[in-house]
Amino acid sequence: MTTAPVRFGLIGTGRIGQVHAASIAASANAELTWIADPIVAGAEAVSARFGGRVTTDAGEVIASGEVDALLIASPTPTHVDLIAAAVAAGIPALCEKPIDLDIARVEALRPTVAAAGVPVALGFNRRFDPAFASVRARVAAGEIGELEQLSIISRDPSAPPAAYVAVSGGIFRDMTIHDFDMARFFLPDIVEVSAVGATLFDDGAREHGDFDTAVVTLRAASGAVVSISNSRHSAVGYDQRLEAFGARGFLQVANAPSSLVSFSGAEIVEAKPPYENFFLERYSAAYAAELEEFVKLVRGEASTSPTFDDGRAALLLADAAQRSATEGVAVAVDLG
Amino acid sequence: MTTAPVRFGLIGTGRIGQVHAASIAASANAELTWIADPIVAGAEAVSARFGGRVTTDAGEVIASGEVDALLIASPTPTHVDLIAAAVAAGIPALCEKPIDLDIARVEALRPTVAAAGVPVALGFNRRFDPAFASVRARVAAGEIGELEQLSIISRDPSAPPAAYVAVSGGIFRDMTIHDFDMARFFLPDIVEVSAVGATLFDDGAREHGDFDTAVVTLRAASGAVVSISNSRHSAVGYDQRLEAFGARGFLQVANAPSSLVSFSGAEIVEAKPPYENFFLERYSAAYAAELEEFVKLVRGEASTSPTFDDGRAALLLADAAQRSATEGVAVAVDLG
Amino acid sequence: MTTAPVRFGLIGTGRIGQVHAASIAASANAELTWIADPIVAGAEAVSARFGGRVTTDAGEVIASGEVDALLIASPTPTHVDLIAAAVAAGIPALCEKPIDLDIARVEALRPTVAAAGVPVALGFNRRFDPAFASVRARVAAGEIGELEQLSIISRDPSAPPAAYVAVSGGIFRDMTIHDFDMARFFLPDIVEVSAVGATLFDDGAREHGDFDTAVVTLRAASGAVVSISNSRHSAVGYDQRLEAFGARGFLQVANAPSSLVSFSGAEIVEAKPPYENFFLERYSAAYAAELEEFVKLVRGEASTSPTFDDGRAALLLADAAQRSATEGVAVAVDLG
Amino acid sequence: MTTAPVRFGLIGTGRIGQVHAASIAASANAELTWIADPIVAGAEAVSARFGGRVTTDAGEVIASGEVDALLIASPTPTHVDLIAAAVAAGIPALCEKPIDLDIARVEALRPTVAAAGVPVALGFNRRFDPAFASVRARVAAGEIGELEQLSIISRDPSAPPAAYVAVSGGIFRDMTIHDFDMARFFLPDIVEVSAVGATLFDDGAREHGDFDTAVVTLRAASGAVVSISNSRHSAVGYDQRLEAFGARGFLQVANAPSSLVSFSGAEIVEAKPPYENFFLERYSAAYAAELEEFVKLVRGEASTSPTFDDGRAALLLADAAQRSATEGVAVAVDLG
Repeated sequence: MTTAPVRFGLIGTGRIGQVHAASIAASANAELTWIADPIVAGAEAVSARFGGRVTTDAGEVIASGEVDALLIASPTPTHVDLIAAAVAAGIPALCEKPIDLDIARVEALRPTVAAAGVPVALGFNRRFDPAFASVRARVAAGEIGELEQLSIISRDPSAPPAAYVAVSGGIFRDMTIHDFDMARFFLPDIVEVSAVGATLFDDGAREHGDFDTAVVTLRAASGAVVSISNSRHSAVGYDQRLEAFGARGFLQVANAPSSLVSFSGAEIVEAKPPYENFFLERYSAAYAAELEEFVKLVRGEASTSPTFDDGRAALLLADAAQRSATEGVAVAVDLG
Repeated sequence: MTTAPVRFGLIGTGRIGQVHAASIAASANAELTWIADPIVAGAEAVSARFGGRVTTDAGEVIASGEVDALLIASPTPTHVDLIAAAVAAGIPALCEKPIDLDIARVEALRPTVAAAGVPVALGFNRRFDPAFASVRARVAAGEIGELEQLSIISRDPSAPPAAYVAVSGGIFRDMTIHDFDMARFFLPDIVEVSAVGATLFDDGAREHGDFDTAVVTLRAASGAVVSISNSRHSAVGYDQRLEAFGARGFLQVANAPSSLVSFSGAEIVEAKPPYENFFLERYSAAYAAELEEFVKLVRGEASTSPTFDDGRAALLLADAAQRSATEGVAVAVDLG
Repeated sequence: MTTAPVRFGLIGTGRIGQVHAASIAASANAELTWIADPIVAGAEAVSARFGGRVTTDAGEVIASGEVDALLIASPTPTHVDLIAAAVAAGIPALCEKPIDLDIARVEALRPTVAAAGVPVALGFNRRFDPAFASVRARVAAGEIGELEQLSIISRDPSAPPAAYVAVSGGIFRDMTIHDFDMARFFLPDIVEVSAVGATLFDDGAREHGDFDTAVVTLRAASGAVVSISNSRHSAVGYDQRLEAFGARGFLQVANAPSSLVSFSGAEIVEAKPPYENFFLERYSAAYAAELEEFVKLVRGEASTSPTFDDGRAALLLADAAQRSATEGVAVAVDLG
Repeated sequence: MTTAPVRFGLIGTGRIGQVHAASIAASANAELTWIADPIVAGAEAVSARFGGRVTTDAGEVIASGEVDALLIASPTPTHVDLIAAAVAAGIPALCEKPIDLDIARVEALRPTVAAAGVPVALGFNRRFDPAFASVRARVAAGEIGELEQLSIISRDPSAPPAAYVAVSGGIFRDMTIHDFDMARFFLPDIVEVSAVGATLFDDGAREHGDFDTAVVTLRAASGAVVSISNSRHSAVGYDQRLEAFGARGFLQVANAPSSLVSFSGAEIVEAKPPYENFFLERYSAAYAAELEEFVKLVRGEASTSPTFDDGRAALLLADAAQRSATEGVAVAVDLG
């Protein structure tokens, strides 16, 4: 007996929407049936490559009766309404992060999602990266003893345009939010946030009162401490490292080499080409795994992960970091 | 203007045939229209996944008028006749290595291929590996000065079944043949072969008078020296390394890590999981690139590489190595 | 013309005193003429190996007229008085860190040292480590552009005895103090300290209200941000890493391998033996270089570095970290 | 009870003689009492640094009655007579490699050494390198299963002067001889030698009919195969690597980094400074360990290793390699 592919409606066809469209098309368990984007040319381009009917109206997709699942990859301000609509229509949704930049809107939606019984998964793709997932499993298996320190380095290749910075919600809500979720992947119960921000090189950040550099320290209920280092630029390419430290040693995730080649000469030895440039390359396997896991969820073969509440928790941590960095105090948080 | 995909006929649906079928299916520039295998179930299984009409008769494919290119992945003894038939029909062919185990048959076919003007490419996939190709390009660009020493380590995860060993033509014609071609990728004009073989662990090799361990030294016309180390088993997984050494330094190709994770503890530090297990994983990018390059060749946008004569040269080197290992003499070769 | 060796008086013959005695003995430019320790057996043991007259009274050494330089390696509470006595006698002194656990005593001594014109150097040995010194020089030369982030990992192999913890002044004054100085080696002008401490595994720390785990964030006047991660235990051996990050890339100091050997097998590959166990092994070259630099200072061939004021600054940072970790606020500091 | 230091007579004060003088001086178990060199200025310079009486006549040292051990570091042609004289005088000797360039002279001396009962050790310092010794011990302990392949890369930083090449005995007797001994450190019973030489860059080698590049394959009685790669130049510094391969995996010795620092930027990542430049740096620990082991031998606390017969075996292999490279045949050897 074969199972019919899960029929996806894709909302939004920007960079991340295209990633998901490709994942859906590449999966034997999924197909792209509807694509919505107010900019119809974007939707049509995706349709040309991967199939699916095109509309400018997300509501048409939800009402079509021809989608088993919704992939919400539209701009952040649309997420809350789309999740609400999906839940109302009984259609499981995978929504890109963040749920919203305004925690009040998230809190308002929360009871609806909790009551509906329709799966809503959050697009924290890094949880599905084979390396991070492996470290988490090995930590859980006790390989390093109790987790005492978790260190995350996360630096983007280059700062986004000033116009993006203006609406991004700031570095903590836009960029560190991935690291907050990664911290919670290992230590769900974070109780305190201390953050230091700096604006060292990016005019866009300076113009909009944002930071381009940040260091965040989290304290977990277990007592474990998390360190996050962010920068909006990185000469080496996408810089994504993690170290989980415990009494028996540590597990590390290294940057992804772009090549197996190294050069050794009179001035330098063992020099490699730069790392994978950015998230599309670095996390390609993660996006594919994320889609497959969501398909299982739609089919009732998996539980929701990461959840709406994981998305809310990451935003709460971002808000706390913003306050800590601004006021110079450690901020207690309650994610319950 | 779009170009129609190159229509492929696939002959043979064993392990390597399936690899090529997947590459064809994944390419925007190719499609699988015919599949031939005397074991029809194999052809049908491939067809179910990737499309294409099925037959037990390769001749039907060639005569169909519905293939622009032939991918010959059938057992070695069939290669010579299939190449001849493809050439006669004017259909470009990509043929798996080796052309044949008998150099006399290869020599007999050679004038036909040379005269025909129909491209015949040999399936030395490793030339298309990004790492090896990069090293070759950097050597050619003079980064390490004149190439003086080339060292190749090539070890399979585990010895093949004794039945396979029996018909393999021996380790030099079956396994080292890839390394002979890799040597010639850097140094086409090899003039001398010295080989030492040993049978240390594999009962199949012992039974059939073959070696399971081999070390080969080649001398190039330039004076450069090539070292090849082979083993029919490798605990770490597929062990595929290369070092190109010159006056200004060396370029190395490392084994492919299967993960970005490392563990450090009280007994060991920086320990990684084993390497990619075997050629399907290690050379997946190479197979895809090989297919794309062959498509260009079929379309007249590239020249043939590696050629039928490259296939012949590798076999001449294998024959010379067999003689050298048996007789304990350095064997001069003339690949002209 | 040869220069006579600098005659050293060594005060204190514990672990670190023995290190300095060996460095003095190994140097062609220094000799050990006097050794003082209230526990005379310790002094005698050092004298038996490296020469020098023995006394239980440090004052006798200072008054002897037979020492050109004083090496103060006695317990911390004795440092202030010994520095004062050395300065009064016009004898240059190299004093182990910290100057004192009480900043008031340091401040009280400060004008005396400043006015005296007798060199007083502080034993922050890590500044003399070839790797850290090289990174600092390369950063100063602009290799990574402006320094934006400095990350220091510093973990001891195992927690000290509870009795030591009781008088240590706490993790920030005892252990992190080295990292504060390392931070100031790169970024002398630190303006703000945020610290988080945790007590996760060490009963001695728990008993005495100390932390065994700490994460400290410093902000420099330049805007650069420093991250320090400490632990009182480390399964891999002494864990001493540093990364200097700027717009053009980063420079890293790796842990010191204890061997050039690695093992690759079916379960793990490239596994190395653990790192050098502790500071005596890891920083042996640094101790020797520190001594040689101090000899130059005594001879008037070098300026004082690190200075008494560097010692004071590190203690101010430790005090600020203690307050930050306790009160949950970022603490502004003025090191001027 | 303390043991008196072993009194050494040093014969020869060239580069390697100075190394040994320093090792003797640094050892608590040895002292330098006599130094002989026809060039008296050399002997006097060593004496000034490390002590010892000076003479131009090695015989005076042997006859002095003031040496417990002889360290023969004079030019190769003097070794045989000095060993004979030491043995006749009942003085244990540590002789630098090679014993002689002429196997006939070695064979003539052999019965004398065998009969005398006076220890004669050969200066194959690499056996005492901690990394090589560790790999050998781990192989012996079965960590990789039966040893199947041993790969040695050994490249000097730069070619010696032509005048040196003229009297060196050729690359196999001068340079590869260390690698032959290293091969026998793992696999004492070598039965066959195949060698390929090339002259690619060194005018001195060309002028004197020598090779500057060599690849040697050895076959052991166990069936294991050894690969040696030599070059008389190496841009990266002294290139000394080894890999022991067996059924369960492999153990590798990497080159010695000269620094713990690496640089990562936009063009390259993880680039380290060049390796230790040459044998004095790379093998400093080995020279010290060699001396200590020889002291134990003199005191009757250790057995001779490597022996005179090890020196003879290495020369037999070098002679066989020379013949193999010249005649293009595998050469059987009997080291019994």
